[in-house]
Amino acid sequence: MDTGLVAAMAGAAGLVFAMILFISMKSQPAGTEKMIEIADAIHDGAMAFLKREYSILAIFVIVVAGLLGWGIGLSTMYAFVAGAACSIMAGLSGMQSATQANVRTTEAARSKGEGAALLISFNGGAVMGIAVASLGLIGLGLLFRVYGHPETAYVINGFGMGASSIALFARVAGGIYTKAADIGADLVGKVEAGIPEDDPRNPGVIADNVGDNVGDVAGMGADIFESYVGSMIATIAIAATLGMAGLDQLKAAASMSDGDIKALLMSLPLVFSVIGIIASFLGIMSMRILKSASPASALRYSTFIAAGFFLVGAYFYVDRAGISGGVFWAVLMGAVGGIIIGLITEYYTSARPVRLIAEASRTGSATNIIAGLAVGLESTVLPVFMICGTIYVAHESAGLYGIGIAAVGMLATVGITMSVDAYGPIADNAGGISEMAGLGPEVRKITDGLDSLGNTTAAIGKGFAIGSAALTALALFAAFSQAVAAATGQPFSIELTDPKVVIGLFIGGSLPFFIAALTMTAVGRAAGKMVEEIRRQFREIPGLLEGKPDAKPDSARCVDISAKAALKEMVLPGAVAILAPVFVGFAFGAQTLGGMLAGATVTGVLLALMMANAGGAWDNAKKNIEKGELEGEGKGSDAHKAAVVGDTVGDPFKDTSGPSMNILIKLMAIVSLVLAPLLA
Amino acid sequence: MDTGLVAAMAGAAGLVFAMILFISMKSQPAGTEKMIEIADAIHDGAMAFLKREYSILAIFVIVVAGLLGWGIGLSTMYAFVAGAACSIMAGLSGMQSATQANVRTTEAARSKGEGAALLISFNGGAVMGIAVASLGLIGLGLLFRVYGHPETAYVINGFGMGASSIALFARVAGGIYTKAADIGADLVGKVEAGIPEDDPRNPGVIADNVGDNVGDVAGMGADIFESYVGSMIATIAIAATLGMAGLDQLKAAASMSDGDIKALLMSLPLVFSVIGIIASFLGIMSMRILKSASPASALRYSTFIAAGFFLVGAYFYVDRAGISGGVFWAVLMGAVGGIIIGLITEYYTSARPVRLIAEASRTGSATNIIAGLAVGLESTVLPVFMICGTIYVAHESAGLYGIGIAAVGMLATVGITMSVDAYGPIADNAGGISEMAGLGPEVRKITDGLDSLGNTTAAIGKGFAIGSAALTALALFAAFSQAVAAATGQPFSIELTDPKVVIGLFIGGSLPFFIAALTMTAVGRAAGKMVEEIRRQFREIPGLLEGKPDAKPDSARCVDISAKAALKEMVLPGAVAILAPVFVGFAFGAQTLGGMLAGATVTGVLLALMMANAGGAWDNAKKNIEKGELEGEGKGSDAHKAAVVGDTVGDPFKDTSGPSMNILIKLMAIVSLVLAPLLA
Repeated sequence: MDTGLVAAMAGAAGLVFAMILFISMKSQPAGTEKMIEIADAIHDGAMAFLKREYSILAIFVIVVAGLLGWGIGLSTMYAFVAGAACSIMAGLSGMQSATQANVRTTEAARSKGEGAALLISFNGGAVMGIAVASLGLIGLGLLFRVYGHPETAYVINGFGMGASSIALFARVAGGIYTKAADIGADLVGKVEAGIPEDDPRNPGVIADNVGDNVGDVAGMGADIFESYVGSMIATIAIAATLGMAGLDQLKAAASMSDGDIKALLMSLPLVFSVIGIIASFLGIMSMRILKSASPASALRYSTFIAAGFFLVGAYFYVDRAGISGGVFWAVLMGAVGGIIIGLITEYYTSARPVRLIAEASRTGSATNIIAGLAVGLESTVLPVFMICGTIYVAHESAGLYGIGIAAVGMLATVGITMSVDAYGPIADNAGGISEMAGLGPEVRKITDGLDSLGNTTAAIGKGFAIGSAALTALALFAAFSQAVAAATGQPFSIELTDPKVVIGLFIGGSLPFFIAALTMTAVGRAAGKMVEEIRRQFREIPGLLEGKPDAKPDSARCVDISAKAALKEMVLPGAVAILAPVFVGFAFGAQTLGGMLAGATVTGVLLALMMANAGGAWDNAKKNIEKGELEGEGKGSDAHKAAVVGDTVGDPFKDTSGPSMNILIKLMAIVSLVLAPLLA
Repeated sequence: MDTGLVAAMAGAAGLVFAMILFISMKSQPAGTEKMIEIADAIHDGAMAFLKREYSILAIFVIVVAGLLGWGIGLSTMYAFVAGAACSIMAGLSGMQSATQANVRTTEAARSKGEGAALLISFNGGAVMGIAVASLGLIGLGLLFRVYGHPETAYVINGFGMGASSIALFARVAGGIYTKAADIGADLVGKVEAGIPEDDPRNPGVIADNVGDNVGDVAGMGADIFESYVGSMIATIAIAATLGMAGLDQLKAAASMSDGDIKALLMSLPLVFSVIGIIASFLGIMSMRILKSASPASALRYSTFIAAGFFLVGAYFYVDRAGISGGVFWAVLMGAVGGIIIGLITEYYTSARPVRLIAEASRTGSATNIIAGLAVGLESTVLPVFMICGTIYVAHESAGLYGIGIAAVGMLATVGITMSVDAYGPIADNAGGISEMAGLGPEVRKITDGLDSLGNTTAAIGKGFAIGSAALTALALFAAFSQAVAAATGQPFSIELTDPKVVIGLFIGGSLPFFIAALTMTAVGRAAGKMVEEIRRQFREIPGLLEGKPDAKPDSARCVDISAKAALKEMVLPGAVAILAPVFVGFAFGAQTLGGMLAGATVTGVLLALMMANAGGAWDNAKKNIEKGELEGEGKGSDAHKAAVVGDTVGDPFKDTSGPSMNILIKLMAIVSLVLAPLLA
C-alpha cells in the first residue's frame, strides 16, 4: 500500500468535503442589506490584509527558499515552498469561510433560533478544520511518496519549516492586528465615550471584527496547521534515524525485518492522520444530530465522538500491522493528554479562579491584575505535569518514537478540534454584526450565548494548541538530536553539565520573554495610534458620536492603521525566531543549539500557558460581573471598571504574545532540524 | 597558613568593626520625643515579628536537623544548625541597626543637612553589610578548619542549607509582610481617603514602615548571606571533587603536586572573601571623604573603590600562590559581571523604559500595565546574556571551578554592596518618620531625595542579587553533579536527550511560576485583610480621619495582621522549595533532579529579573509623573492614577515574588548537593 498516495487522496477527499460544506453554508441566507454591507466590509478588510501580508511574505519565502536551495538542496527548497503555500491556503480558506459564516449565523439567529445559528457557525469553522487537515495530508502525502525513505526523509523537514515560518508571521501579525483594533476601539468607545461594544458609530469596530478573523481564524489555523504537520514530520524523522535497538522495541514479532518495521513506523503518522480525518468527519456530521442538545454539550460530545472513533481505528491498525502495542499506548496518552490539558484550561478560565479575580476587582484594578497574574502563573503547573506525564508514558511505551507519535495522536483529530475552535470568532463576529445592524436584543441574546460559549471553546483550544505545540517541539527536538547523530555518525550528547549547554539553555529561555516583550509593546503602540485616530474622528466628524444618520465613521482608516502596524511589527519577532537557531547553531555548535531549544521550549510553554489562561480568566471575570454574578456589583460599577482593565491587559496576553510562543518554539526546533546536516 | 582560622579571625575583626559602627551611629541624636516614639513603634514591631518568625523556624530547624543527623550524619547536622543560626544573626543585626539608623537619619536631615543624613543611613546599612560578611567568614572559616579536606568537605554543605532554608522563609515572610502593609495602607489611605503617604492618621503606616525593615533589610540580608556562603561552599565542593585534568589546568607550574593545588583551590574562596571584606572596609571608610560629593556618586564610587581594591588583592594573591592566571580572569569576570548587571537594571528602572511607561499611563491603567510588563519581559535579555558571558569566560579560563570562583568574585565585596542596598529602606523609613512626626517640607525634601536614590540603589541591588543567585545556583549545580559522580564513582551525565531529564526540566521550570503564584496570592489576600481593617478603623474610630488630636489609630492591630499573614503564608512556598528536590531526587533519581535544577534556575532567574525590573520601572514611572516630568500631567491626574495601579502591581513583583526566586533556586540546588551522597 502506498501510504503517501492514500494520505494525499484522503486529503483531496477532505478538500471536496470542505468545499461542499462551504457551498452549503454559503447558500444560507445572509440577511438584510445592512447586514450584508457590514459583512462585506469585514470580508474585504480581512482579505485585503491577508493579501498585503502574503505579498510581504512572498519575498521572505523567495529569499529563504534561495538560501535553502543553496545550502541544503533543491528538494528541501521545493518542500519549503510547498509548506509555505499550504499554510497560506489553509489560512485563506479558513478566512473565506469564516467571513461568510459570520453574517449567516446572525441571520440564522434572527430567523431560525439558536440551534440553526450554532450549526452554521460550527460548519463555518469545520471548513477550516477540514481544510487544515486536508492540506497537510496532501502536502505531506505527496512528499512522502517521493522522499519517504530513510535516506531522503530529511527533505520533508523543509515542508514543516515553510509551514512554521508562515505561521509565525501570521500569528504575530494577526495577533497585533486584532488586539490593536480591539483595545483601541474599546478604550475610546466603551470607556471614554460610553457607547456599547460593536456600536456602529465607533470607527474601530470594523477593524475589530476584521481582527477576530485575521487573528483568531487565520492565525490560529496557521498555528495548528504547523503543529499538525510538525508532529508528523518529527515522527517520520525519528523513525528514519532509529537504530536497531529502537526498532526492536517497536516490533510486535521479532521475525519482522528492520527495514519493514522502519518503513511501517515512518508511514504510521500519515496513517493515523488519515484515520483522524475520517474520525473528524464523523464528529462533524454528528453535530447534525447533536444540535438539539445544549450548544456546550454538542461541541464537547462531537469532539469526544471523533476522539473515540480515532482511537478505535488506531488500535486496530496497530494491532494488525505488527507494531508493538506500546505505540498505541503512546497515541492514547497523546489524545487523552490533549483533552485533559484543554479541561484544565477550562477550569482556570471559568471556575473558582475567575471568581477570585472578580472578587479582587472590588478593591480596584491593581488587585484585579495581581489576582489575574497569580491565576495565570498557577495555571501552568498542572498542564506541565500533564505534558510530563505524556512524555513519560509515551517514552516508556515506545521510546523516543513514542513522543513523536503521541504528538500525532494529540493532533490527528485536528479537523474537529479546529472546527470547535474557529467557531468562537465566527460567533463573536455574528454578535458584532447583529449589534452594528441594530437587530435588537433577542438576536443579540442568541449570539451572545454562542459567543460566550465561544470564549470557553477558544480557551480550551488555546490550551490544546499549547499542549500540542509543546509535544511537537519536543518531538522535533528529539528528531534534531537524532539527525545530528546520524549526520556525524556518533552519539550526540547534550550534557547539562557542559556550560555550553547551560549557556544555550539560558539564551533559549530568554527568547520567549523577548518575543513576548516585542509583541506586547507592538500592541501597546498600535493601540495607542488607534486610540488617537478614533478620538480624532469623534472630534472632527460632526454628529458621529450623536449617531446622526448621515455621519459615517471612516472605518477604512482604522483598518489601515491596524494593518500597517501589524505588518511592520511582525518583522522583528519573525526574524529573531528564524535567525536565532541559525546564529547559535553556526557560532556555538549543535550542543549550545540543543540547549537553546530546550530552554526556549520550557519558558515558551510556561509563558504561553500563563498568558493564555490569565487572559481568559480576566475576560471571564469581567463577564461574570457584567452578568451580575458578583454580589452588589454590575456593569458600570467600580469593580466592573477594574475588571475591564484586567480584560484589556489580558487581550495581548491571550491573543498576541501567548499564542506567538507556540509557534516560536516549533519554528526554532524545525529550523534546527533542517540545519542539522550542516551542523555536523 | 591555616586559612580557616584566618577567615574566622577576619570575620571576628569585621564584627568588632560593625559593632563600633553601630555604637557610633547609635550615639547620634534621635530627635524629638515624637520621633523617638514612632521609631520605637517601628523597632518593636519589627523585633516582635522576627521573634515570632524565628520561634516558628526553630521548630523547622530542629526537625530538619534531626533528619539530616539521621540520614547524612551528625557533622552535617551541626553545620546546618550553624548556618541557620548565622543567617538569623545576620538578619537580626541588620534589623537592629536599621531600626536605629532610620530615626537618626531623619534627625540628621532636620538638624545637619543631606551629607550627614546620607552618612548615617549608609553606616546603618554598613553594619549589616559587614555583619553579613563577617558571620559568613566566621561560620565557614571554623567549619573549614575542621572539615576543609577533600573527603570531609561535604559536611560544609550543611551550613549552606541552613542559611538557605532560613533565607527562603525570611524572604517570603518579609516580602508578604511588607507588601500587605504597603498595599493596604496605600489603597485605603492614598487612594480612598486621599491622605498623603505615611500620614500618621493611617493605621497601616507603622506596619508599612515595619515591613520595609523585615522585608528589605532582614529579607535581603538573608538572601545575600545565602549567596555569599553558597558561592564559597559550591567552589569548595567543586575543588574537593576535581579530577586530575581539572587540577592540571589550574596549576601555574606543572611541578606542583595535585594535593597542594587542591588544598589551595579549596581555600581560595575564603582567601578572596577575606580580601573582599578588607576592600569593603576601605570602601565604607571612603564614604567619609566622598560624602561631600552628590549622594549618587558617593555610593557608586565607594562600590567601585572596594571592587578595585579587591581585584588588585586577588590578582596579587593568584599570582604569588602558584595558581593559573585563568582563575583571576574568572574572578574579574564575576566582579565586573555583577556590576554590569546592576547597571543594566538601573537603565531599565530609570531611563527610557520608565518614560515609556509614564507615557502609556496617559491612556489608562491597562496600557500602563501592558507597557510595564513589556519592559519587565524585555529587561531579562541583557542580564541573561551577561550571565552567559560570565559563565563562558569563567569556564574557558578555569573550567567548572571558574564558575564557582566567578560567583565568589561577584560576592566577595558583599560588605559594601549590601551597605548600599540596606541604605535604601533606612532612607525610606527616615522619610516615613519625618512625615509621621510632622517635620515639615524641608526635612521631607532631604529624606525624599535620599529615598529616591534608595530606589535606584535598591533596583541595582536587586539586579546584583539575581545575578549572584544565578551564578551561585549554577556553581551549586556543578558541585551537585560532581558530587553525584564522586559518590557513584562514575561520570554523571544529565542528558537533555533523555526524556527523564526533559521531564525534570519542565517540572523545575514550573516551580518558580508556582511559587510566584503562591506569594502573589498571599500578598493579595493579606492586603485585602489590611484594607478591611483600615477601613473599619476610619469608620469606627471617631475623629480619626479628620485628624483630631485624641483620635489615635490602632496600629498594633495592623502590625498583627501583616505578621500573622506573613507567618502563615510562608509555610507552603518554603515547604515546596525544600521538599521538591527531596521528592524528585528519591522518586525519579539524580538525572531528573539535575534537569529540575536547571529548569528552575532558568525560569527562576528570568521571572526574578522580569518582576524586579517591571516593579522598579512602574514605581519610578509613578514618581516621574509626580515630579511633573510627564507634560500636562501631575500628582492626582488621570495618568497619575493609572501609574499608581502599575506601582501597586509592581509591589509584590519586586518585593515579594521576584526576590523569592533567588532563594528558591539556591535552596533547591543546595538541598540537592546535600542529598547527593544518598542519591548515588
